[in-house]
Amino acid sequence: MRLSRYFMPTLRDAPADAQIVSHRLMLRAGLVRQEAAGIYAWLPLGLRVLRKIEQIVREEMDRAGAVEILMPTLQLADLWRESGRYDDYGEEMLRIKDRHERDLLYGPTAEEVVTDIFRSYVRSYKDLPKNLYNIQWKFRDERRPRFGVMRGREFLMKDAYSFDVDEAGARASYNRMFLAYLNTFARMELQAIPVRADTGPIGGDLSHEFIILAETGESEVFAHRDLVEMGAPGPDIDWFGDLQPLVDQRTRLYAASDEMHDQARFEAEAPPEKRMTARGIEVGHIFYFGEKYSKPMKAVIAGSDGVERPAQMGSYGVGVSRLVAAIIEASHDDAGIIWPESVAPYGVGIINLRPGDAAVDAACERAYAALTTAGKEPLLDDRDERPGAKFASLDLVGLPWQLIIGPKGLAEGNVELKRRATGERQAMPLEAALKVIAP
Amino acid sequence: MRLSRYFMPTLRDAPADAQIVSHRLMLRAGLVRQEAAGIYAWLPLGLRVLRKIEQIVREEMDRAGAVEILMPTLQLADLWRESGRYDDYGEEMLRIKDRHERDLLYGPTAEEVVTDIFRSYVRSYKDLPKNLYNIQWKFRDERRPRFGVMRGREFLMKDAYSFDVDEAGARASYNRMFLAYLNTFARMELQAIPVRADTGPIGGDLSHEFIILAETGESEVFAHRDLVEMGAPGPDIDWFGDLQPLVDQRTRLYAASDEMHDQARFEAEAPPEKRMTARGIEVGHIFYFGEKYSKPMKAVIAGSDGVERPAQMGSYGVGVSRLVAAIIEASHDDAGIIWPESVAPYGVGIINLRPGDAAVDAACERAYAALTTAGKEPLLDDRDERPGAKFASLDLVGLPWQLIIGPKGLAEGNVELKRRATGERQAMPLEAALKVIAP
Repeated sequence: MRLSRYFMPTLRDAPADAQIVSHRLMLRAGLVRQEAAGIYAWLPLGLRVLRKIEQIVREEMDRAGAVEILMPTLQLADLWRESGRYDDYGEEMLRIKDRHERDLLYGPTAEEVVTDIFRSYVRSYKDLPKNLYNIQWKFRDERRPRFGVMRGREFLMKDAYSFDVDEAGARASYNRMFLAYLNTFARMELQAIPVRADTGPIGGDLSHEFIILAETGESEVFAHRDLVEMGAPGPDIDWFGDLQPLVDQRTRLYAASDEMHDQARFEAEAPPEKRMTARGIEVGHIFYFGEKYSKPMKAVIAGSDGVERPAQMGSYGVGVSRLVAAIIEASHDDAGIIWPESVAPYGVGIINLRPGDAAVDAACERAYAALTTAGKEPLLDDRDERPGAKFASLDLVGLPWQLIIGPKGLAEGNVELKRRATGERQAMPLEAALKVIAP
Repeated sequence: MRLSRYFMPTLRDAPADAQIVSHRLMLRAGLVRQEAAGIYAWLPLGLRVLRKIEQIVREEMDRAGAVEILMPTLQLADLWRESGRYDDYGEEMLRIKDRHERDLLYGPTAEEVVTDIFRSYVRSYKDLPKNLYNIQWKFRDERRPRFGVMRGREFLMKDAYSFDVDEAGARASYNRMFLAYLNTFARMELQAIPVRADTGPIGGDLSHEFIILAETGESEVFAHRDLVEMGAPGPDIDWFGDLQPLVDQRTRLYAASDEMHDQARFEAEAPPEKRMTARGIEVGHIFYFGEKYSKPMKAVIAGSDGVERPAQMGSYGVGVSRLVAAIIEASHDDAGIIWPESVAPYGVGIINLRPGDAAVDAACERAYAALTTAGKEPLLDDRDERPGAKFASLDLVGLPWQLIIGPKGLAEGNVELKRRATGERQAMPLEAALKVIAP
């Protein structure tokens, strides 16, 4: 993409009401624009990051055997009356009447809809397990939306729902999601810690939150250091084999957020040198809740014995739009964002220090063509701007590499290659720089 | 994908209230499920088609220089009060109050939001032209939603908005979209006819609808045969050069839908053998409307003379979810859907005629692996079902190829390869069949 034809409206200063660093940087780098309280438009650069995160989440869901569907944003109130949640949900639910005075709502989550879909088509244990997920906009009418897309009202969520014939099956489904989440966050270069969670208003027996480490995070997390260092299981595990050992290996080590923290247990279970306390941000939440929806909504499954029983369900959420902000909280410096390669909106920024200079233009075009062919998605700053402004805006938007091409360097046969994460700059011939970026 | 792990709930019969063939086939093939009047969930197969159509639309927009953003589904009523449309829009607009009694609405279109984004950042003619598009769910509260996703209430639309400093620039932007639309529909193997359109409630001077030919289409279209045969300009035109000749070549030939048809002019402008009358479906609509929104909303641009003038705008819509139905209307037979390759949910269905037979299973796995590697996205029917049911469901869901593998054929060293569009079947060795599908 050439900046002269793009739309990347960076700002010198963030609005004063942007309190946290990710919110400030998202506004300054032109990733989003607030349209109403807690409601954002995604500008080109922000949308590209959102889509890359979405795609990683999708690939890891698919790998773990989940099947993608797409549920509508608006839902029938009657379905929520069936589950009994319509009156309980409170003011966070955006209630709507259509022109015929029918009660609709903007889905804050989709247990009811997916249970309705499931019961319409699936009857037999032979068709299980099933895990249906979707990545769709949701709405929660927060009383005080703030922190940008971190706590917005309209937000993009991946929500998956598993259906099994018995508890053992449901636990296997839960384990697949538990491990898929670790892989998902690892691909975004995030350190994610699964902590046991309160099952809260959704109810049920078993639940974990996934908290990624970020110095500026909203909550505190306490964990055994071995858990943090253990990392993700990787994609090549046997997803339909016995995953319990891999899950146990992680859940037997102490990990808790402030809500559930028990200092005495922490000290009993982790020796001092293994006790880690850090700030973090919740980016995922998984639940096993059994028959909570399937029973009132009569989503029943005939077992191998011919007897019908309510399906055993779980649900699994990832805050996709929230992750954009969470990654920034985990990876930035004073100059701006530092995107991990896997979610960077473009792989490399090419800075043309003197547009109009034939040699510089030609070198930029050669770099642009070569990097495009190599799949590195270059963003070429061909604007008529001061070099200082170009450096500042590329640091701000945080692409992994900067390739700086100017007349002085070229006269010596060199361009300059800068790694955004480290700030390291090195002069070298263009061809050598291209080999570093796209080996 | 293996059907044993998939979710493809085909139905023997469509509900009686599904009146048009695409609606019946979408329900029977398990592409969508109605969740409320005019509100659909997209099941796995339907979602894959929707995403492929969306991606073609995206690629052709990008090629023509438009830049993707994403606007929220909910919008502030106040913006629509600025443009003067809030009170005019009528009952099709879904009006919503949030918990603080602020007026929101579910966007039926996004001229106001995009104009607001534009005016917040862009001030100078140097930054133009700009064309911002998004592919987002919209809502129009139709009094009588029907025909499935063809006339739904919650629907996926691509809407692009161009901003130029003067009318000549705006016409160039219009021309890019005009030609990009022809390329877009051509990639879906649709015959699209641009017809001059009434500018209607959006207002303005210049407008075309794009109607794709389908025997079961909703409206009648009258066109000079040369226009139909001229086809799309292809991707390799100079998008920022003078496109007027390519547009004129097409707009000087007679084309009208029933609304705007003038039989006398038709007969004057086309000799009898060149007069084509056919059924069609509107899938796109483009407008040039000048200052209609930029003036009341004060989206002004400083020209090279330093004088500020309202930006010249156009808008350009494609019904993305509607296209799923429109393609089916244009391409089906008594047995089911016939997907064009570019939007087919999977490229080839592999029918295992006897799961459990070691030789058949092995051949199916070999085919599955080879076709996956070749990027042909195979769908393997490994279910324990009668062959007849497997044939019927693959015909119904309409993948371009069927690869039929059974014990009898294998004993003779053959599999059977069927082309869905023609029904042609041919016995040949597996390796030969793989070469035909993935040359």
